[in-house]
Amino acid sequence: MLVVLTGGTGGAKLVHGLSLEVAAKELVIICNTGDDFVCHGLRVCPDLDTITYTLAGLGDAARGWGIQDDSFVALEWLGKYGGESWFKLGDRDLALHITRTRLLAEAVPLSGITERIRGALGVQATILPMSDDRVETRIVTMEGELSFQEYFVKRHWADEVKKVFFAGAERSRPAPGVLDAIRTAEAVILCPSNPITSIGPILAVPGIREALTKTKSPVAAVSPIIAGAPVSGPAHKLMAGAGFEVSALGVAKAYADFLDKIMIAPEDRALEENIEALGLQALAAPIRMDSLEDKRRVARDVLASLRYM
Amino acid sequence: MLVVLTGGTGGAKLVHGLSLEVAAKELVIICNTGDDFVCHGLRVCPDLDTITYTLAGLGDAARGWGIQDDSFVALEWLGKYGGESWFKLGDRDLALHITRTRLLAEAVPLSGITERIRGALGVQATILPMSDDRVETRIVTMEGELSFQEYFVKRHWADEVKKVFFAGAERSRPAPGVLDAIRTAEAVILCPSNPITSIGPILAVPGIREALTKTKSPVAAVSPIIAGAPVSGPAHKLMAGAGFEVSALGVAKAYADFLDKIMIAPEDRALEENIEALGLQALAAPIRMDSLEDKRRVARDVLASLRYM
Repeated sequence: MLVVLTGGTGGAKLVHGLSLEVAAKELVIICNTGDDFVCHGLRVCPDLDTITYTLAGLGDAARGWGIQDDSFVALEWLGKYGGESWFKLGDRDLALHITRTRLLAEAVPLSGITERIRGALGVQATILPMSDDRVETRIVTMEGELSFQEYFVKRHWADEVKKVFFAGAERSRPAPGVLDAIRTAEAVILCPSNPITSIGPILAVPGIREALTKTKSPVAAVSPIIAGAPVSGPAHKLMAGAGFEVSALGVAKAYADFLDKIMIAPEDRALEENIEALGLQALAAPIRMDSLEDKRRVARDVLASLRYM
Repeated sequence: MLVVLTGGTGGAKLVHGLSLEVAAKELVIICNTGDDFVCHGLRVCPDLDTITYTLAGLGDAARGWGIQDDSFVALEWLGKYGGESWFKLGDRDLALHITRTRLLAEAVPLSGITERIRGALGVQATILPMSDDRVETRIVTMEGELSFQEYFVKRHWADEVKKVFFAGAERSRPAPGVLDAIRTAEAVILCPSNPITSIGPILAVPGIREALTKTKSPVAAVSPIIAGAPVSGPAHKLMAGAGFEVSALGVAKAYADFLDKIMIAPEDRALEENIEALGLQALAAPIRMDSLEDKRRVARDVLASLRYM
């Protein structure tokens, strides 16, 4: 069994590659839910949904989220009634948020809902939210405290980040199956997702980081930072705001207590020595994933490093 | 000021006609909400919405509800996730239900939401729900108790009706403006809506029937029954189930305590004497509304009978 910790966009690329290289039944994806938010009164889980749609073959790879070729009729009318329209929810996508909101109101836990959606869309891999409890990533900026989506989508990550915290994390529990999956995994992969706001919330759920430290299986990460810059998104601003060096070394440091290996870009070979000084192995190989073939190759490389074949 | 009590489909035809014969600012429409129900976790108000869409020029006159030329993309996907799809909510229509559900959760009363939607769609007439409190029309059949939508849409009104009641009515209060409108109206019209499940719930809200009895303005109804059969829908089954004769006379009896005039079809001239024995005036004229010109003519006829010009 292969356990994968991931956020949305960047992580979904590697998850896509892994899904084509490993039998679906062996895959357990543990997903960030710190970005979840309420939009038009509906619970939206951007990372869970991106991963689910990706594994269902429905993902809009160009946008990085949502369903490909979706329409936006309801959104246009929500706008007429004064609803916020900065988060672009398509008609197909809305059906998922409506269903989830209804089931949450009926006291079905998020993990149960995720399982139901997965089944309805024919996804074979296991997808677990990090927690059934609400954990909210909050971004403290000069302009005040923002939700992740306000910071990321609405304000285009333009604000300087002073601090990031995860409201509700200390009282949250890992979703059913999360700790067992990490304990019994043959290998664990941390996707090239933002270490602060994608992997960070997962690690903030009490018990998960400890399980990663204790697991006997090898744990590998793929760096989301290449030559001091993120492949996509605001990881650099968030890492700097959280006091981490914006580099593959900074990523390695963020995970040093449980990580065994990190894949870094060839451009970052100079960091190998400092990374290995942390007691973990650095593997330089092309990690940028633009094409489907890139995704499969990076997946194969990280699987090979873990001897998971 | 002209006050109009109405349900959905049948009532919407006359409301449409009236809206073309009377200045919009003079119109106050009091709408049945006994049919309201929750679908996919969203609050749907079929009669309020049909009236609002009709007045906005958006109504799907052929179907009798919803928005013309709507698409059904979200509904198809709600079905994939196991959601019920017997109530056909279009993408444009969904936006209204999503907005209403969000605002209700934010403790905005239904009347406030209705006002906001009206404004957003450019409707000039006043539209009032009968109550901001939840009143639910329940249909008792041999198969058990059904909500109105289950009886009407899902089971195609095939069940024999034993009894109809309005759960929550006794504790409900008229929405703000309803009693004042009836008290100060120059004339009141009861649309040719089902007397049991469209007008019945409005009259079941404590204070409304009394206000109609006390108002000095003339009150006229248009019969929804022609020659012993409803123009549309299950009014005959519901009237019979409630112990009323299925005829224009039965309609007159249902409203006899406050009604001054009733428009009946020429086919029902034989009932005039019995209707007038109830102490109210029967006016025979064509009341079937198939075309827009029919709607306008019936509107003009009922306005003339009330000397409201």
